[in-house]
Amino acid sequence: MDYEKHFADELNRLREEGNYRVFADLERHKGAFPSATNRTGGGAREVTIWCSNDYLGMGQHPAVLSAMHDALDKSGAGAGGTRNISGTTHNHVLLERELADLHGKEDALLFTSGYVSNWAALGTLASKIPDCVVLSDALNHASMIEGIRHSRAKTLIWKHNDLADLESKLASLPAGQPKLIAFESVYSMDGDIAPIAEICDLADRYGAMTYLDEVHAVGLYGPRGGGIAEREGLMDRLTVIEGTLGKAFGVVGGYIAASAQLCDFVRSFASGFIFTTALPPAVAAGAAASVRHLKQSGEERDLQKKRVAQVRARLDSIGIPHELNPSHIIPVMVGDPVKCKYISDVLLDEYSIYIQPINYPTVPKGTERLRITPSPVHSEKDIDRLVAALGDLWAQCQLARLPMAAQ
Amino acid sequence: MDYEKHFADELNRLREEGNYRVFADLERHKGAFPSATNRTGGGAREVTIWCSNDYLGMGQHPAVLSAMHDALDKSGAGAGGTRNISGTTHNHVLLERELADLHGKEDALLFTSGYVSNWAALGTLASKIPDCVVLSDALNHASMIEGIRHSRAKTLIWKHNDLADLESKLASLPAGQPKLIAFESVYSMDGDIAPIAEICDLADRYGAMTYLDEVHAVGLYGPRGGGIAEREGLMDRLTVIEGTLGKAFGVVGGYIAASAQLCDFVRSFASGFIFTTALPPAVAAGAAASVRHLKQSGEERDLQKKRVAQVRARLDSIGIPHELNPSHIIPVMVGDPVKCKYISDVLLDEYSIYIQPINYPTVPKGTERLRITPSPVHSEKDIDRLVAALGDLWAQCQLARLPMAAQ
Ligand SMILES: Cc1ncc(COP(=O)(O)O)c(C=O)c1O
Ligand SMILES: Cc1ncc(COP(=O)(O)O)c(C=O)c1O
Repeated sequence: MDYEKHFADELNRLREEGNYRVFADLERHKGAFPSATNRTGGGAREVTIWCSNDYLGMGQHPAVLSAMHDALDKSGAGAGGTRNISGTTHNHVLLERELADLHGKEDALLFTSGYVSNWAALGTLASKIPDCVVLSDALNHASMIEGIRHSRAKTLIWKHNDLADLESKLASLPAGQPKLIAFESVYSMDGDIAPIAEICDLADRYGAMTYLDEVHAVGLYGPRGGGIAEREGLMDRLTVIEGTLGKAFGVVGGYIAASAQLCDFVRSFASGFIFTTALPPAVAAGAAASVRHLKQSGEERDLQKKRVAQVRARLDSIGIPHELNPSHIIPVMVGDPVKCKYISDVLLDEYSIYIQPINYPTVPKGTERLRITPSPVHSEKDIDRLVAALGDLWAQCQLARLPMAAQ
Repeated sequence: MDYEKHFADELNRLREEGNYRVFADLERHKGAFPSATNRTGGGAREVTIWCSNDYLGMGQHPAVLSAMHDALDKSGAGAGGTRNISGTTHNHVLLERELADLHGKEDALLFTSGYVSNWAALGTLASKIPDCVVLSDALNHASMIEGIRHSRAKTLIWKHNDLADLESKLASLPAGQPKLIAFESVYSMDGDIAPIAEICDLADRYGAMTYLDEVHAVGLYGPRGGGIAEREGLMDRLTVIEGTLGKAFGVVGGYIAASAQLCDFVRSFASGFIFTTALPPAVAAGAAASVRHLKQSGEERDLQKKRVAQVRARLDSIGIPHELNPSHIIPVMVGDPVKCKYISDVLLDEYSIYIQPINYPTVPKGTERLRITPSPVHSEKDIDRLVAALGDLWAQCQLARLPMAAQ
């Protein structure tokens, strides 16, 4: 077996499909987000980032940074162990309290990432509750799918956000059988939002637990940044709320918030929680500062909403098609991986605007897109430049336009 | 189904077995490792940590901390995206280069943890090489087991460090079938070391790839801290070397080092690499500084070896039994979870010495132990206090002693 040849062949297949990924080498400038230095083989150039998931610019917030500097000065770099073996620092304890409070739950449990929190928590719940059936939304994130797959529990996939389909699947199962409904609030690539209240109604009716991924909503929605479930007054109806510290909160890490027993159960049995070095105390301190700040400040959320509306209106004004949705995510559909990458390359090379093309496997083939995430760190000038660049490109590439909105 | 009752029952079962885990809430003091504040329900006390995997104290090294402070000042807190979507910072690029160089490989690939690197890399290699059979050492770490399980590839478990058993399993497979031998160098709970050269000989003879977890060896062994494979001059014979940035390097994160094609293959296909926020630039900068420092400084490694020898000699001198092994890990066997926790509690409460009891599922039931990890930040006075405390406790609990070594 020629292993190297197999790797080369598979990579060539990706290249031929236009799905081979080239990472942009970036250095963001604290205090000057969204600008960054982009290094290429040849040199370096200043660019404006329009596709970050640091949705509120909290990654450069003074409260976050000073908490991180302080924790580094006090406790050093790493945690030095797994949570069980010398790696639980006081910063972890404080952060878990902050997160339990954010979601109105008895407890919270930290993981090294949102990916690991989904994988480990869903994997453990579905495998360690005897006979559990998972009802999984068809568009759930890879980390949820892998966790469910890992559990080897019976799984029923229901049509995306389709209550009738979910109900028919629930009704097909024996009443006494344990059930877990797994879904997201804001779906990150299309920006649509799940009917959480109705899903909770079905869960109550059929005796199911609910597991809600709020990764693209925490920090962003609700009066204290508790997510869509907070905004809709539904947090107490969900069994588990899962979130990330790496997107709107601007740092890194993931968590679940739930009953004390459930958190203790996952803490005690989840391989992905137990057998890994804890997050650095400085990361926990920075994340806690970010959560705390966004509980009492709505300023960042308000300005983000304004910027999202401005970008949408300006795209409409020149007829550039984008998917309408009730969230902060603006998908501009291209539908072809090669064209999508070409537009992205030209934006970067000629306009110093960085929007990574989103391709397979992040989205299904044929739905390749530019995914624009306006944030409070973007200025109106940044928006002018973005819209002008897209206008040029749409003309140059003869891409389809919508009828111009009346101005 | 009463879910809460199920959680409570399972937790009670753990409690009855003595396997319920209580985490120590710690705050290490930078510049004063191994001392830390331990907060309890009642208050706080100063303790000495003897079970950290920050094996060399790099978590408080000025070079590491200043790199992290600088990166925070320059680039802010988080990476703001997955590696593909705006999350590749220049610090990641530099760290991957540093790691490829450390192991003499063409390339390296960073993950959010060592756990995720094993899970994602083994899962991808074993599932995406058609018909691949994994030959897995019986004592491999949970993260490797989960990765292999995730791949759903055919798996043969060979007896721990047993070349004859490995060879018979290799010989049982068709010559042309793809094979992957997965093992560790230093096994972390017993401290024994694999016969890497002989395993590579077998791999060559039977056309297998080799995947070596050096998590408990990187930074610690070899003239530049490249691990056991570096020390034995074997790095070029291994297909993949996997390591962590969270133990001897003192920060957090994981990686593989391998050929450029193999790294690109895992980069392109591993869900656990693709669908997760990248490590913060400050983490990458701190880890790179640590790797760089330990490439050119042997001081920390030398002092660690001295401290390990001192602790072993002093335990021998009072007849406290510990497993002999060729590594830096000193397992003091207790063999009972309740007794092990009792000793650990008394050490903490009466002697201000923190050594977490190691119990199931980290080690098999019946092999519960105290696992002592001496480091350059422990002083000779710290050793005096540790040995005196263990001597008291062994007398008080009437634990078995070995014949005293001649003094
Ligand atoms: C819906 C969803 N869940 C979970 C994750 C994983 O979170 P993290 O980036 O913290 O690993 C992501 C994205 O990365 C996501 O989009
Ligand atoms: C052998 C081994 N491999 C991998 C890991 C995981 O590494 P990390 O702590 O960086 O997740 C560990 C311990 O945590 C380990 O002991």
